[in-house]
Amino acid sequence: MIIVVKNACEKSQYDNLVEWIKDLGLDVHVSRGETSTVLGLVGDTSRVDIDLISSLDIVEQVKRVQEPYKNANRKFNPTDTIVNVGGRKIGGNFFQVVAGPCSVESEEQIIAVANAVKASGATMLRGGAFKPRTSPYAFQGLKGTGIELLIKAKKETGLPIVTELLNINDIDLFNEVDVIQIGARNMQNFELLKEVGKTGKPILLKRGLANTLQELLMSAEYIMAEGNNQVILCERGIRTFETMTRNTLDLSAVPALKDKTHLPIIIDPSHSTGIAKYVSPMSLASVGSGADGLIIEVHNDPKKAWCDGAQSLNPAQFDELMGKIKLMLPIVGKNFDGE
Amino acid sequence: MIIVVKNACEKSQYDNLVEWIKDLGLDVHVSRGETSTVLGLVGDTSRVDIDLISSLDIVEQVKRVQEPYKNANRKFNPTDTIVNVGGRKIGGNFFQVVAGPCSVESEEQIIAVANAVKASGATMLRGGAFKPRTSPYAFQGLKGTGIELLIKAKKETGLPIVTELLNINDIDLFNEVDVIQIGARNMQNFELLKEVGKTGKPILLKRGLANTLQELLMSAEYIMAEGNNQVILCERGIRTFETMTRNTLDLSAVPALKDKTHLPIIIDPSHSTGIAKYVSPMSLASVGSGADGLIIEVHNDPKKAWCDGAQSLNPAQFDELMGKIKLMLPIVGKNFDGE
Amino acid sequence: MIIVVKNACEKSQYDNLVEWIKDLGLDVHVSRGETSTVLGLVGDTSRVDIDLISSLDIVEQVKRVQEPYKNANRKFNPTDTIVNVGGRKIGGNFFQVVAGPCSVESEEQIIAVANAVKASGATMLRGGAFKPRTSPYAFQGLKGTGIELLIKAKKETGLPIVTELLNINDIDLFNEVDVIQIGARNMQNFELLKEVGKTGKPILLKRGLANTLQELLMSAEYIMAEGNNQVILCERGIRTFETMTRNTLDLSAVPALKDKTHLPIIIDPSHSTGIAKYVSPMSLASVGSGADGLIIEVHNDPKKAWCDGAQSLNPAQFDELMGKIKLMLPIVGKNFDGE
Amino acid sequence: MIIVVKNACEKSQYDNLVEWIKDLGLDVHVSRGETSTVLGLVGDTSRVDIDLISSLDIVEQVKRVQEPYKNANRKFNPTDTIVNVGGRKIGGNFFQVVAGPCSVESEEQIIAVANAVKASGATMLRGGAFKPRTSPYAFQGLKGTGIELLIKAKKETGLPIVTELLNINDIDLFNEVDVIQIGARNMQNFELLKEVGKTGKPILLKRGLANTLQELLMSAEYIMAEGNNQVILCERGIRTFETMTRNTLDLSAVPALKDKTHLPIIIDPSHSTGIAKYVSPMSLASVGSGADGLIIEVHNDPKKAWCDGAQSLNPAQFDELMGKIKLMLPIVGKNFDGE
Repeated sequence: MIIVVKNACEKSQYDNLVEWIKDLGLDVHVSRGETSTVLGLVGDTSRVDIDLISSLDIVEQVKRVQEPYKNANRKFNPTDTIVNVGGRKIGGNFFQVVAGPCSVESEEQIIAVANAVKASGATMLRGGAFKPRTSPYAFQGLKGTGIELLIKAKKETGLPIVTELLNINDIDLFNEVDVIQIGARNMQNFELLKEVGKTGKPILLKRGLANTLQELLMSAEYIMAEGNNQVILCERGIRTFETMTRNTLDLSAVPALKDKTHLPIIIDPSHSTGIAKYVSPMSLASVGSGADGLIIEVHNDPKKAWCDGAQSLNPAQFDELMGKIKLMLPIVGKNFDGE
Repeated sequence: MIIVVKNACEKSQYDNLVEWIKDLGLDVHVSRGETSTVLGLVGDTSRVDIDLISSLDIVEQVKRVQEPYKNANRKFNPTDTIVNVGGRKIGGNFFQVVAGPCSVESEEQIIAVANAVKASGATMLRGGAFKPRTSPYAFQGLKGTGIELLIKAKKETGLPIVTELLNINDIDLFNEVDVIQIGARNMQNFELLKEVGKTGKPILLKRGLANTLQELLMSAEYIMAEGNNQVILCERGIRTFETMTRNTLDLSAVPALKDKTHLPIIIDPSHSTGIAKYVSPMSLASVGSGADGLIIEVHNDPKKAWCDGAQSLNPAQFDELMGKIKLMLPIVGKNFDGE
Repeated sequence: MIIVVKNACEKSQYDNLVEWIKDLGLDVHVSRGETSTVLGLVGDTSRVDIDLISSLDIVEQVKRVQEPYKNANRKFNPTDTIVNVGGRKIGGNFFQVVAGPCSVESEEQIIAVANAVKASGATMLRGGAFKPRTSPYAFQGLKGTGIELLIKAKKETGLPIVTELLNINDIDLFNEVDVIQIGARNMQNFELLKEVGKTGKPILLKRGLANTLQELLMSAEYIMAEGNNQVILCERGIRTFETMTRNTLDLSAVPALKDKTHLPIIIDPSHSTGIAKYVSPMSLASVGSGADGLIIEVHNDPKKAWCDGAQSLNPAQFDELMGKIKLMLPIVGKNFDGE
Repeated sequence: MIIVVKNACEKSQYDNLVEWIKDLGLDVHVSRGETSTVLGLVGDTSRVDIDLISSLDIVEQVKRVQEPYKNANRKFNPTDTIVNVGGRKIGGNFFQVVAGPCSVESEEQIIAVANAVKASGATMLRGGAFKPRTSPYAFQGLKGTGIELLIKAKKETGLPIVTELLNINDIDLFNEVDVIQIGARNMQNFELLKEVGKTGKPILLKRGLANTLQELLMSAEYIMAEGNNQVILCERGIRTFETMTRNTLDLSAVPALKDKTHLPIIIDPSHSTGIAKYVSPMSLASVGSGADGLIIEVHNDPKKAWCDGAQSLNPAQFDELMGKIKLMLPIVGKNFDGE
């Protein structure tokens, strides 16, 4: 960490600052310039409060040299983490596709979709049981019953299941869930992060709509600080001024995260674009970017034939997409194997 | 709600859509144009899922005419809500100033700050006991002990207290707290919103960093849907590309919210700018904008004399600011009275 | 265009509005609801000032059904435009790669880079002669001399050349330039757009840092309104809160633009990410997204060996990338042919 | 400027970098840490290309200590610049209000508005003659005729006039214009900035929709580098995700800019909010923030009575606002005097 101190400050203030840093167990290297002095802090600075220091009158600027995350940091763990989900491996050279409906609606529905996506090559099943909704008047999911239906679909197809947890008091319902999803709105619900950290289960951590990649890694660090390093990061679009898509899918996050962390990164092209016909091109773009997997909405409800335009693909569209993904994976050095 | 349907769609799809809308108990007015047809939905559309309809193949656009919030909507409740916090009124012509330290650190500290801000005219005391921190390694607050110290300061000074709740399982500790704060990161933690809705206490609801004003009103609606209409909205800066301030304080939110809702709106100039010397001008700007109050960080720790530049004002700076606020309030038709 | 009028308005205001619309040569369909009335405007609404109408007291909302652009609109021109640049075709199934240095520095440099990128399969040469720089003290390019050096490189290699125009008074220097680039900062320099519209040359129009896709199409419309439909759109990253990359490359722009316009779209992965090691993954992602081409910075200056980390690839990195692009193109149904 | 170099780099690369810095006439202070080395650059670093250095393989981070602007920098010119516009002073303790219609429409209109705003206390007249419009099909202003009408209104009322220049080739038409406005879309049209820098006239420089405050100061620097220090900065809203106002007025820009520069700063509450009823509260907020003036749209067209809701105030609304501004100015230590 580097602190730039104004030379115009009072000596007592300067001495207080240096003493306080040393009290934190850090060494200080001083480099005095014409109008300012640079303090180089050497040691473990991950616990130093950068906001506090930035706010001091005598400080011009503070800049971290070390990142504030350790467990998630590739510098300290250069080898790719490969998360094992019921035998499916994700990370390193292993690429997985999670597919399924937005919400679990009925046994018939979830089993039909599970069979369909499995036939096309999906390797995990997703489905919402607890749904975070902007409006208190909107459908909030089948809750516990939804989890039970997912478990039935898992037994039927063998696909591991991925579903979202909203309330720490519901965690016991997730014992047979393979991957617990933390949604974008809860990325900084630190109480929830600590709780899922204690489970030891694979966690799918979605980036918040307005969170930086560094904040995403800090939230992963919350989970890992509880001893759980089975974290899968997920980019699902950020909020910008553009309105032609629901959110702006930030695919550069893939190489940027790969640079900073050893954790696997998957992409959600369905929620980010919000438009079904953009899901296939953005899925292929994700493969090109070096992502470790995809999480895609697929629905299968013949009664809602008029609903074909949703952000969900139908099974035929998903099947066609999977064909292209399989052709593209070898070019980027990835494969589905891992069972 | 207006739905624009492509004329090129199949008749069966169109009929399905119209029938489905009627099943929701709504009337449909049809206006057929050259290349598209406009459906006007008449009735209570607040429960209609706009995302679902937008996603239909045959739909070009959907546009709400009615807002999706009811309890918070000024149309249905034209009179300003005046929230009563232990005798202090906020909203309408009543303006209040909440002041206090970022974190409660010790009995000595919180009581000293409480006495200081009261002397300058602050009408409520703030202080963090449970602190949401980006890093799992940072200080997370004195928790239950912090709440107890706030209650002591309340007894000492008579100032009502405002403090943040993070975990629904801690709610019993907040019985003697006058205003429960929901922080920016939890604005869409719907489980927490439902829980504080049940308390009937005044709730200070902070806007999330990347949340629209409409989403803020939808989160207020979650609290109000539980029967609690004692909601104080708080603008505290949004995330933009600008880096010279920590966040971008969106003061236009004040007249915009006043237009849409009857709930009181206060401003947090400390967290939004992150820089103490910007707090006073932005406080006066807030008064000019028509806000119903301010929540300002004030600290008083002689041992950290070098910390004067923080986002916190010291008591002397706060006192000077309060003097100007008192001069300015009559120009905008507001006053502190209300006890 | 749909206008929602409050029923509470005065009749004279309402009548004034309807009369004014009819004076514009449009038909008005009226659909009266409980609290508001919907006016459906039928006819050519591309010249109606939506801002003016939105601002009327009696108007709740205005919503375009038709887009405000005509020449660029796929609805009116469903077939992909294929721009012909000295025999190279771009658009439809044709994919091209423009490569070259950020700035033209010397004859030796530009010819060496041109030969190198041609050997790897690049089909056009880029290089900056007039450089827009944030600082008035930074190097602003070789200007006219730079253009001459590009023309020499074109003669040497046969590659068509692409370079940026900043000042309408410099346009005569661009006679032998094959593609005139309008940079991101000038996307809404409407005087410049009109001027390049008159040239009839292919124009590479870069999206502004904070411009929506609709604004990009409106700027294309400026060029096309002068009779020049040889417009190539370019996504080069937008400004967001994320700082780990220089800008946020908005790849969803590709399917979104393909949906709305027949014009070709290319991607600039160099300026958007600002980091050389992210250029290759984002180039492959661009191919996956369905883009019609890439514009990539490649440099070759042995004297600045320490500069290898720039946003520019070196020739070896570019060659490796081109190998992967060639493998990937058939999967998305594209090819380089077209001479 | 501080450069953090990885210790893992090759010695030759490191030596190349240090040598290159010294060639720029700068001293280098070296502070070697465990995993990285900090280079402190001493001397005039305003011409050093930070992007180039950031991009080097061996560089972890670069951070400016000195700002890249000199003429606009308060450090080098601590005293407030007071711009003199035909006898009206702006900056320091002097506050001015520029008012007038969006577009000049006719002699009758501009003279009527000029007389009205003068009667209420406005001290300068604004009006658009050249209008930058998103659509090529929208009205682009009366151009030269509009300038002539403004000059007539100036003769009639004595109010100095402010109007926008779009095309460097029109500059001769602006001889009798008192303040040349550079609009938001042209903030980084560097050719135009250089040209108005040469005029020596007061320049009103509007912040671009997606430009940082530092970029605004760099654009001011372009004008000042030509010898013209009569620059008035203008905040007019930035582009964010919020849609309830047209743009997000960034009022914290006022104290932030006051901190960094000696130039005066005014606020445009009309374009930023886009809604007339928000203009008055945001004007008072601007006064509170410490701004040096306002630029407000006022119209007066009895034929368009239905247009009252526009972003423009009518003369009565403007008059009421001016009354409140006059009451508020003494509280922030400002006044209108200066003729």
